Amino acid sequence: MPGRLREKNVNPEFSLVAYLSERKAQVDGALDGYLPRGQNGPPVIFEAIRYSLLVGGKRIRPILCMAAAEAVGGEAEAVLPAACALEMIHTYSLIHDDLPAMDNDDYRRGRATSHKVFGEDIAILAGDALLTEAFRLLTDRGGMPGMPPDRLLDVAREIAEAAGHRGMVGGQVRDIRAEGEAVGLETLYAIHRQKTGALLRVSIRTGAILAGAGEEALAALSDYGGTIGLAFQIADDILNVEGDPLLLGKGTGSDAARGKVTFPALMGIEASRARAAELVMDAVSSLASFDEGAAPLRAIARYILERRS
Amino acid sequence: MPGRLREKNVNPEFSLVAYLSERKAQVDGALDGYLPRGQNGPPVIFEAIRYSLLVGGKRIRPILCMAAAEAVGGEAEAVLPAACALEMIHTYSLIHDDLPAMDNDDYRRGRATSHKVFGEDIAILAGDALLTEAFRLLTDRGGMPGMPPDRLLDVAREIAEAAGHRGMVGGQVRDIRAEGEAVGLETLYAIHRQKTGALLRVSIRTGAILAGAGEEALAALSDYGGTIGLAFQIADDILNVEGDPLLLGKGTGSDAARGKVTFPALMGIEASRARAAELVMDAVSSLASFDEGAAPLRAIARYILERRS
Repeated sequence: MPGRLREKNVNPEFSLVAYLSERKAQVDGALDGYLPRGQNGPPVIFEAIRYSLLVGGKRIRPILCMAAAEAVGGEAEAVLPAACALEMIHTYSLIHDDLPAMDNDDYRRGRATSHKVFGEDIAILAGDALLTEAFRLLTDRGGMPGMPPDRLLDVAREIAEAAGHRGMVGGQVRDIRAEGEAVGLETLYAIHRQKTGALLRVSIRTGAILAGAGEEALAALSDYGGTIGLAFQIADDILNVEGDPLLLGKGTGSDAARGKVTFPALMGIEASRARAAELVMDAVSSLASFDEGAAPLRAIARYILERRS
Repeated sequence: MPGRLREKNVNPEFSLVAYLSERKAQVDGALDGYLPRGQNGPPVIFEAIRYSLLVGGKRIRPILCMAAAEAVGGEAEAVLPAACALEMIHTYSLIHDDLPAMDNDDYRRGRATSHKVFGEDIAILAGDALLTEAFRLLTDRGGMPGMPPDRLLDVAREIAEAAGHRGMVGGQVRDIRAEGEAVGLETLYAIHRQKTGALLRVSIRTGAILAGAGEEALAALSDYGGTIGLAFQIADDILNVEGDPLLLGKGTGSDAARGKVTFPALMGIEASRARAAELVMDAVSSLASFDEGAAPLRAIARYILERRS
């Protein structure tokens, strides 16, 4: 009954702007609380961690995690520590990617990158500390009271798989090695599935698993996660070509200048835009059997095509 | 009954050389098995991981972990994956510490360091991958079948605390910042408790917790771990002054040349030797209530004073 389905899927009351802003505030508040202010250690490492973690960032991964929990009938707040751990892993990867030995970026989110402010040594260690702290949060039974320990273990293991050499780290290695090389579309898809897709997908799975999702729901949400991961990357590449540097907080055209292979470079801007739109439609279709608890996930998918920064 | 105690504590049949060699072979074999050979990823990251992880290394942390399990009546093999995870964390910390932005070391264990062979970018990512893979192993229920999930979570959380900004990473930051500074003995102790002591201590606790140690036994083993951690560091500092460069695989006197504060520099060689001996005696005393299952731990403590590399 497509009519009924459509009715179920649309919630005219739902405001994505309000939702994102409320969830972002929750994440920001929780992250701030997890990070002590320099007790029992040299203040500079805490400063460096706070500098990168607490300013800027749309908190997409933690919000996807919480929205997935809601989509299967769970509470967003119950998965907040795991959601914050995902943001820590994302932030560590940005700090290390920006290093002179990697992408050598001086600016990120409109501010000087960690190594420009604290030096390379502290930036490397701040990244290491964030990655480690993420797994402390994920394995802290006290942080998510009442959560079955098996779920906590499964989520931590999946996140480690998605973040390590099978996932994000492996994708970054491929990406570095691909710069200046002739790379085809299939390789580009493969790089992004590993480098950014794996962590986005596992962000969704984390919320769903912790909220006790059944097998079918988990499979549908995994499809959604894999699809929007790729859509996000294509949209990012398009923004790098034609976005507003003021909104982005970094210069446009930096990918091209560096000889980085991008979707617009391989397919052209128009075909890239069409592919992103197609992926967003696929993502929304994956959620067809969900009720209005999945309204945030549907709206986030559509938002990928509209965002300007 | 001190006579009976002494009798219980000495096992004339026990050979430390044979024990260390058997356990090291177990660890080396298991580590080799955990690391795939370049499937699903760019071969260079797997090469870099294998290069640092599989050659050299006395495997002190995994062996302490297994010996602690045995000391409380458990099986060494049952904790092997966690033991290997500890070695991965140790190896990641060496790769990152050796980087040009940190200690800038060209040699480690007699071979070129990771960044000299693979470049700084790959060395940073190989370290990141090893740290992440350690937590995958620690949270993989399938790897330690039958292990209560609560124990796995507690161990992973404790290791994250010991490895992160509260422990090893915080200690490395202090150490970097202390180079060339006037540092007193109390600060030096504090640096080492964080930088090397925390991971050694948690290696012991990991084996004991996974093997189901009671509260008293765990407390005694924690004391042992804290004490030998410091003894190891003092012995390392002494070896750096007067060890055989061929056995060590690196030059002696490198600490002094770098302006690094060491125990011999602050207390003199003889007082350092006396302090290490005292700590080893304390460590052995912590194990007074254990039976001959603790023979390996006792022998390892005594070995600290005798090792030449």
